Amino acid sequence: MLGDNRYGKAETRVVRVDRSGAAHQIKDLNVSVALSGDFTAVHLTGDNSNVVPTDTQKNTVFAFARDGIGEIEDFGLRLARHFVNEFESVHTARVTIEEFAWHRLHDHAFERAGAEKRTCLVTVTREQAWIVGGISDLVLLKTTDSEFHGYIKDRYTTLAETSDRIMATSVDARWRFGETQADWQRSFATITGCLKGQFAAHHSLSLQQTLYAMGETALQAVPEVVEVRMAMPNKHHFLVDLSPFELTNEHAVYFAADRPYGLIEGSVLRENAPDPGQAW
Amino acid sequence: MLGDNRYGKAETRVVRVDRSGAAHQIKDLNVSVALSGDFTAVHLTGDNSNVVPTDTQKNTVFAFARDGIGEIEDFGLRLARHFVNEFESVHTARVTIEEFAWHRLHDHAFERAGAEKRTCLVTVTREQAWIVGGISDLVLLKTTDSEFHGYIKDRYTTLAETSDRIMATSVDARWRFGETQADWQRSFATITGCLKGQFAAHHSLSLQQTLYAMGETALQAVPEVVEVRMAMPNKHHFLVDLSPFELTNEHAVYFAADRPYGLIEGSVLRENAPDPGQAW
Amino acid sequence: MLGDNRYGKAETRVVRVDRSGAAHQIKDLNVSVALSGDFTAVHLTGDNSNVVPTDTQKNTVFAFARDGIGEIEDFGLRLARHFVNEFESVHTARVTIEEFAWHRLHDHAFERAGAEKRTCLVTVTREQAWIVGGISDLVLLKTTDSEFHGYIKDRYTTLAETSDRIMATSVDARWRFGETQADWQRSFATITGCLKGQFAAHHSLSLQQTLYAMGETALQAVPEVVEVRMAMPNKHHFLVDLSPFELTNEHAVYFAADRPYGLIEGSVLRENAPDPGQAW
Amino acid sequence: MLGDNRYGKAETRVVRVDRSGAAHQIKDLNVSVALSGDFTAVHLTGDNSNVVPTDTQKNTVFAFARDGIGEIEDFGLRLARHFVNEFESVHTARVTIEEFAWHRLHDHAFERAGAEKRTCLVTVTREQAWIVGGISDLVLLKTTDSEFHGYIKDRYTTLAETSDRIMATSVDARWRFGETQADWQRSFATITGCLKGQFAAHHSLSLQQTLYAMGETALQAVPEVVEVRMAMPNKHHFLVDLSPFELTNEHAVYFAADRPYGLIEGSVLRENAPDPGQAW
Repeated sequence: MLGDNRYGKAETRVVRVDRSGAAHQIKDLNVSVALSGDFTAVHLTGDNSNVVPTDTQKNTVFAFARDGIGEIEDFGLRLARHFVNEFESVHTARVTIEEFAWHRLHDHAFERAGAEKRTCLVTVTREQAWIVGGISDLVLLKTTDSEFHGYIKDRYTTLAETSDRIMATSVDARWRFGETQADWQRSFATITGCLKGQFAAHHSLSLQQTLYAMGETALQAVPEVVEVRMAMPNKHHFLVDLSPFELTNEHAVYFAADRPYGLIEGSVLRENAPDPGQAW
Repeated sequence: MLGDNRYGKAETRVVRVDRSGAAHQIKDLNVSVALSGDFTAVHLTGDNSNVVPTDTQKNTVFAFARDGIGEIEDFGLRLARHFVNEFESVHTARVTIEEFAWHRLHDHAFERAGAEKRTCLVTVTREQAWIVGGISDLVLLKTTDSEFHGYIKDRYTTLAETSDRIMATSVDARWRFGETQADWQRSFATITGCLKGQFAAHHSLSLQQTLYAMGETALQAVPEVVEVRMAMPNKHHFLVDLSPFELTNEHAVYFAADRPYGLIEGSVLRENAPDPGQAW
Repeated sequence: MLGDNRYGKAETRVVRVDRSGAAHQIKDLNVSVALSGDFTAVHLTGDNSNVVPTDTQKNTVFAFARDGIGEIEDFGLRLARHFVNEFESVHTARVTIEEFAWHRLHDHAFERAGAEKRTCLVTVTREQAWIVGGISDLVLLKTTDSEFHGYIKDRYTTLAETSDRIMATSVDARWRFGETQADWQRSFATITGCLKGQFAAHHSLSLQQTLYAMGETALQAVPEVVEVRMAMPNKHHFLVDLSPFELTNEHAVYFAADRPYGLIEGSVLRENAPDPGQAW
Repeated sequence: MLGDNRYGKAETRVVRVDRSGAAHQIKDLNVSVALSGDFTAVHLTGDNSNVVPTDTQKNTVFAFARDGIGEIEDFGLRLARHFVNEFESVHTARVTIEEFAWHRLHDHAFERAGAEKRTCLVTVTREQAWIVGGISDLVLLKTTDSEFHGYIKDRYTTLAETSDRIMATSVDARWRFGETQADWQRSFATITGCLKGQFAAHHSLSLQQTLYAMGETALQAVPEVVEVRMAMPNKHHFLVDLSPFELTNEHAVYFAADRPYGLIEGSVLRENAPDPGQAW
């Protein structure tokens, strides 16, 4: 029996240049499409008569980019609505976009900015649409104002309690809008500012507490957002034991470890948040 | 308001050597733990009194490895049950394991085998347990017996229909067991054999059809499995146009593209499959 | 017969926090050490009596970090000189460092800046020392002012000449100093500024010409540098053919390709540059 | 002043299928070309009249693949000779190839074999040619027969001596031929066998000794090879301290670390080896 299924073209890398002004504008995106609907025949018999080829999906991304991209949430909505409206067999279209940021050096020259990416996840059915904005790979570190103690001890506990540690993480945050129209750019800027600001200002007793505070601040600042989901690895920085060399190490020299790492995931919801439906 | 949340230690790389026989045995794992339960306080106030530190989780993985690992599904069950049984605040424990395979060169020397990894996902609550086995990064290619035609054409279609193309993919398959006891090793070997064998033998009209056939064959071969989920990227190999050089190209020279790629995801279920609950 | 050989500890990830002021300072490095010298015995008979263990090299990196890191070129020199001076068997020490930049958010909170890394390569023998500074992963793009025509045509040529294309690259530049004392920080800032500025301002007839202009400008600006070596991949952006959809594409929509890519490597030397010796 | 320079198309991914027999054959390559010669004008003035575009190089790789690839050393020679013979401005052509291995599942179906890659590096001038074969990413591990002691101790030494440790590495070996004609396939198989066999059989007092023994065995087995260069990271496996849990750990449970790692590089030469010239 066929269960859940979907298919689409992943990671179409489209760059759109707007040359209408003296200073060129660029949008640099990685677009993935996934369609689901009436696709039993293709699985059971290889009958492709309901199938929109993934190659066509890629072409559609490029063709739609021609008329301008705008905010990625809007571009995702236009694309997803096209697939649902144009093709009877497509019941749900999901468009995932990563946007790479560029700093301007000159009227038509740019430098890639940061490793962080703005993201969105747009899901459209014939009845409804859901918009999720986001940021990923936002790497943050604080050198103090982070404690960790009072946890459960058992026979496998060796970790020492600490009232001063480095806290470092790579934030992957996504926020669900209650509506399908909003000032996407402003909400991105506001939420990103809240996440950074609260990470910096918060006196942390655990990474979970910091995560919650970051999400809460973002929710308070942007009324059109109803939920913030975050995944934050705890990128451990261990104080190096220099005592064998007869040296002290007063929170000065750390080893940045790769693996294993803590992984903290959580969601902060507005109290009257609408049901997420197929948003995630 | 706090929504769904979980936390744990990700990617603990444990290698276990068994020296009891003349020929040493090794198990090489990447183990991730995620716990959820009564963790509201740590998010809201930073009160860690319900928190099992991720460092302790890592220690537990190492300590449990000492008494032997066995099949990864069993090792995952032992670990997950420990966290749920030992700590009142932990309501659900999920253990994800990747196992790297080694070929024997000698009594105590080995060569890393393949890029594919055996995987499992074990979820345990106080009431129930779910086991999912799997394989990832299994890269397969067939040079013929793959067609693609009869699909929807619209104004954005440029893809030519073909009755002979290269089909290549990297299989990520996961299978849900109906029980919490089974011959894990044999089911892994049988299902992996079915996936490869059916990929090779199947005359494909679409990647979806191949995916379904692969899952169906696996379900038929292993009664204790009730669902197979697969994600299979379509790793495109494009026939190079050599006509500008006055050369023919009769399905001989291909360009292997990186991005974009098709991504086909689907599930094949036994008809009377039990509800998946928290298995996935 | 034993030929060239060297060994060392690679990729020690050390983070140094300076808490002496109200605003904390951090240095975040990836340090690799490679030693060569009198190491025939260890290769031929496994006699380790001349060997400084790589574990000790790692410890030394951490211990030396304790007294402050300063500029990476100086830290590399201190480390390399230590190994050569302390151990008779070590004739040459090479220290390679990558430095990750952080933007300040707050007195003691930081955001990882850019993907680019400052680098250095320090080589020390008992007689001499060589310093090479650098930057890697500096991703630049210009939307116009780049032409490419007048090249050789043969039977395998299909590329159309263009007077307006996107030029994008990821600069890996390294510069050799004529001296072992300099204002490393200022030279880094000046050269990086020159590379970006000249990339932006230059009207390019080929990526080679741009590379040379970038290096020449840097050499002119920093007298203590005698050579600049650059590797610059040509990250192709292909104009998408939208004509099948009856759409024009006036330098608007591009596909950013991953592979293959052009790779342009070149060196710009001051005329009276001293012999590089073992600098590279 | 312009110093050393070269340019070319990197990482052309070509797959060649031979359908002449009932069982199809495939060759799966990643080909990089780098040309140097009379390229001063393009750097100084952007005059491309001596430039073979990298796009043409890519086309040439595909066109040459049409007539069959054969052994990668021969394919590299054909390509490199073409560039040097056809274009007066090209004085040296270097072709680097990685070959991915596939296991046969069926007449026309394959499974990607291992992560290791066969490699070659072919350098051709108008006067001479050099061939270097190789293997990379060959991951080996032995659970015993590896000691490490008798090394230098200084104030930064904390490593304990051991007479039994895990030794693991990822071999990158390259071998230089004394001639431009040889049985490339047989030499690859023989050398790869020697490297694995000697790694397994050798009782190691240091990774350097193992490296030398591996290279020496390979040189002895293949007379047409005059030098073997190897880079072998020491992929550390640390015995986990289980004593806090009142458990012993008799060489049973290890933590596989990512970074830092030792990096051992060395060359083994035949005594009368010809000068390497531009081989490397």
